[in-house]
Amino acid sequence: MRESSDKASSEIWIGGDWCASEATDFFQSENPSKGEVLATKFPVSPWNEIQQALNHAAAASEVLAKANENQIADFLDLYAAGIEANSEALAEIAHSETGLPILPRLLKVELPRTTNQLRQAATAARNSSWRRAVRDTAGSLNSTFAPLGGPVVVMGPNNFPFAFNSIAGGDFAAALVAQNPVIAKANPGHPGTTALLARVSSEALAKTSLPSATLQLLFHMSDEDGLKLVSHARTAATAFTGSRHGGLKLKAAADQAGKLFYAELSSVNPVVVLGGALRERSAAIAEEFFVSCTAGTGQFCTSPGLLILPDTPEGKSFLETAILRFQQAPAGTLLSRNVLLSIAAGIERLQASGAVVRCGGKSGSGPGITFQGTLLSVSGATFLQFSSQLQTEVFGPVSLVVLSSSNAQTRAIIEALEGNLTGTVYLSTQGEDKPAYHEVEPTLRRKVGRLINNRMPTGVAVSPAMNHGGPFPATTHPGFTAVGLPYSIQRFAALHCYDNVCQDFLPEHLRGEQI
Amino acid sequence: MRESSDKASSEIWIGGDWCASEATDFFQSENPSKGEVLATKFPVSPWNEIQQALNHAAAASEVLAKANENQIADFLDLYAAGIEANSEALAEIAHSETGLPILPRLLKVELPRTTNQLRQAATAARNSSWRRAVRDTAGSLNSTFAPLGGPVVVMGPNNFPFAFNSIAGGDFAAALVAQNPVIAKANPGHPGTTALLARVSSEALAKTSLPSATLQLLFHMSDEDGLKLVSHARTAATAFTGSRHGGLKLKAAADQAGKLFYAELSSVNPVVVLGGALRERSAAIAEEFFVSCTAGTGQFCTSPGLLILPDTPEGKSFLETAILRFQQAPAGTLLSRNVLLSIAAGIERLQASGAVVRCGGKSGSGPGITFQGTLLSVSGATFLQFSSQLQTEVFGPVSLVVLSSSNAQTRAIIEALEGNLTGTVYLSTQGEDKPAYHEVEPTLRRKVGRLINNRMPTGVAVSPAMNHGGPFPATTHPGFTAVGLPYSIQRFAALHCYDNVCQDFLPEHLRGEQI
Repeated sequence: MRESSDKASSEIWIGGDWCASEATDFFQSENPSKGEVLATKFPVSPWNEIQQALNHAAAASEVLAKANENQIADFLDLYAAGIEANSEALAEIAHSETGLPILPRLLKVELPRTTNQLRQAATAARNSSWRRAVRDTAGSLNSTFAPLGGPVVVMGPNNFPFAFNSIAGGDFAAALVAQNPVIAKANPGHPGTTALLARVSSEALAKTSLPSATLQLLFHMSDEDGLKLVSHARTAATAFTGSRHGGLKLKAAADQAGKLFYAELSSVNPVVVLGGALRERSAAIAEEFFVSCTAGTGQFCTSPGLLILPDTPEGKSFLETAILRFQQAPAGTLLSRNVLLSIAAGIERLQASGAVVRCGGKSGSGPGITFQGTLLSVSGATFLQFSSQLQTEVFGPVSLVVLSSSNAQTRAIIEALEGNLTGTVYLSTQGEDKPAYHEVEPTLRRKVGRLINNRMPTGVAVSPAMNHGGPFPATTHPGFTAVGLPYSIQRFAALHCYDNVCQDFLPEHLRGEQI
Repeated sequence: MRESSDKASSEIWIGGDWCASEATDFFQSENPSKGEVLATKFPVSPWNEIQQALNHAAAASEVLAKANENQIADFLDLYAAGIEANSEALAEIAHSETGLPILPRLLKVELPRTTNQLRQAATAARNSSWRRAVRDTAGSLNSTFAPLGGPVVVMGPNNFPFAFNSIAGGDFAAALVAQNPVIAKANPGHPGTTALLARVSSEALAKTSLPSATLQLLFHMSDEDGLKLVSHARTAATAFTGSRHGGLKLKAAADQAGKLFYAELSSVNPVVVLGGALRERSAAIAEEFFVSCTAGTGQFCTSPGLLILPDTPEGKSFLETAILRFQQAPAGTLLSRNVLLSIAAGIERLQASGAVVRCGGKSGSGPGITFQGTLLSVSGATFLQFSSQLQTEVFGPVSLVVLSSSNAQTRAIIEALEGNLTGTVYLSTQGEDKPAYHEVEPTLRRKVGRLINNRMPTGVAVSPAMNHGGPFPATTHPGFTAVGLPYSIQRFAALHCYDNVCQDFLPEHLRGEQI
């Protein structure tokens, strides 16, 4: 979809100005519902532009660090209102770029979630909860969390054009509340949506006295320039959500330069269904599984990609019920052609390690980019033999069912898993699964960020008690979350201690009597 | 100092037992006060032993994660009492291995600091402050910080045989309070001290019901095995304090495997003396500088290695005063021959970039391993030209004085610095330096973890408001500290969310009514 052009048809936003890119390379997104390339061309910025954005951000960061938190809060509230005022245009362009339905998903679910997040972030800015000031008056020591001292680069994912957008989502808001400038790099799947959000944010920003380079937007860059950006001396941190392959390359570059790199990389979100739960409510759980696995055509980071069942008549019957349910549903629209290619490759990889396709496995008919809800199955013994290959995430409506011969084998299967965002156990309400639960829980607990009972993993509540994170490679740090204030903010904060510094020279919130 | 032997003369502590190492390679430490190799041989463990320690730790970690926090607190208190009961033997062996004076340093300063840290850690374990539980009853969400799920490898530095010892220091205590098993790797500079501390800790551990592999000790390993250890699947995290060169190699291995790696690597701790302060109290500041720079023969991570003075008659006069003071003092004993070699190389590196030795620069006379208090100087312009070379840490009683032509140049010099643990500004008590302070402070602030006024950087108070950390390469994460509870603990904790999990299955501190 990339081609050269003499003219950029969209402007980049750097240094407070919307200006023509000097790009000689451009890209277009595709309407996945129609399988048609969209008309607007977006620039692949040359390094010179990226460097300019870094320079502007460095200058802005010093001013922003001293800004009053109410200004940031006011911006976030204005931005949320601006998004609401432009909701229909936003939903329309997001639909055209991602194929996600306007109703209810974009207009009634994701957009309100996004404005809610921005307003929660505004509250967090106002109450400064993320600063966690500690005062030791006797020792003349005061410490507080503070901005990092440079821009945060946000590279958002393809699957939430609003709620995790590089210029509107959770990482964006968290980085800004900690008073860091943001350099957003649009996801190439929805550049038009991102451009419109950036326009709305620039109008809100202009109504505040925050530095004009507080926010900047680039649409794309070469892989090589991406590595340079995340490891650049001026860059303070990067927040990345996307493919494991690309994420690990960026992480290596950032790590080598000693730069913070928060990434959400991959997760199969294991779901364990215990025997008592199956005997009690097999059909209901199968229905929940189907809904969770195919919601958003399976393109959620918390989609249940691995289901572990007892290899019993009840387990086999559950699988047959699920297969029938999956077969009844039409193929769902995917976010992009790349997602389709990667699903096909992912299913092949699973098959090559002994998994058998039980239903689905193909694109739907019609011009759109679609895929059928797909189940594969494999024995527990085979899973243990090829656990590395069989736990690779297939981003889409695809789940691998493992038939486990015993609770001990289930535990071994979980032990063989890498870090995941979530892990779920379905158990009987009558207590008969309690021993089995205690057998598998300790292992599952340390493999996941969020441990769930009797509920599918999709659906991430915006709550201070949420953890949308997990051990590597689910994310790059097991102590941080991308959702849930104020913890998500603290990823982008440095600990600042003031030792024997007089009142006048302290940040305002550290002054005065001991708090 | 390394040689082969058929017999290990010291036992390693793994799996709860003190057992003979299978090592074929051994090392001895040297008494730096006498320049004599000490008799005891310590094993360089082969990989097989390291793997055994990892296996034991993995088994222990699951039990320890469910242990009652009071057991950990009780152990820490018992251990502190045991250290006190063995204080003279500990001070004696530490003195023989490090050359640090028994009085006051080892017996009256560092040992009480160490037991104080252990008791503060016991309190933190009891009050669970590090867990930071967040409850959202309406959403059935509960989150808490929790153990990492595997051992923390602690590799302590050479310069604090007690307070930062791998089996007794701050990182050790922080990792344990978060209920992680510890695999300690002794610093090769004080293996005998570490062995004695481990014996004392094993006696305390035996009085509790904690798993016997909660703590383990290895004395040494090959560089290659060190890389394997920090990146091993069973390892949860590493805490390293030591040389930048070695630390970065370990960091690269850990990063590639997605393993946590907290390291304190290097810091020159810039001190800026402003013009008004010089006019007001030049001699007093010169004395403070001398004391801070030569305390512990300059072998502190917060030693002032870079002093920035105005290039004025007052600045030059300050430098002459300092030179005279340094010249009056006898050479100080170093921790080891390696420290001496690295000081010599460091001074050569500074000279090669235009710095001039103004006093000292040589070893003292006598059989001990010693070095003179040493000052070098360089112009601000030269510093800016070779800023990378001229800001390399020389670990010892060595400081580089930069004569800066203006406050703007001072700011540029600070801008050229990497991350540091501390940054200090001396300013007039009468307000005349206020404009200059505001010119340099914002830049200095974002380069350091602890910003100090009118006080030298050595001396790290054990306070919750302390930050002993700083931006890379001072440490590997600007949001974490190695001193100060509970933040230091949270480096070794994972965020665990419980979603729709019934009361019975929650950790005890998350049960019951909303807190």
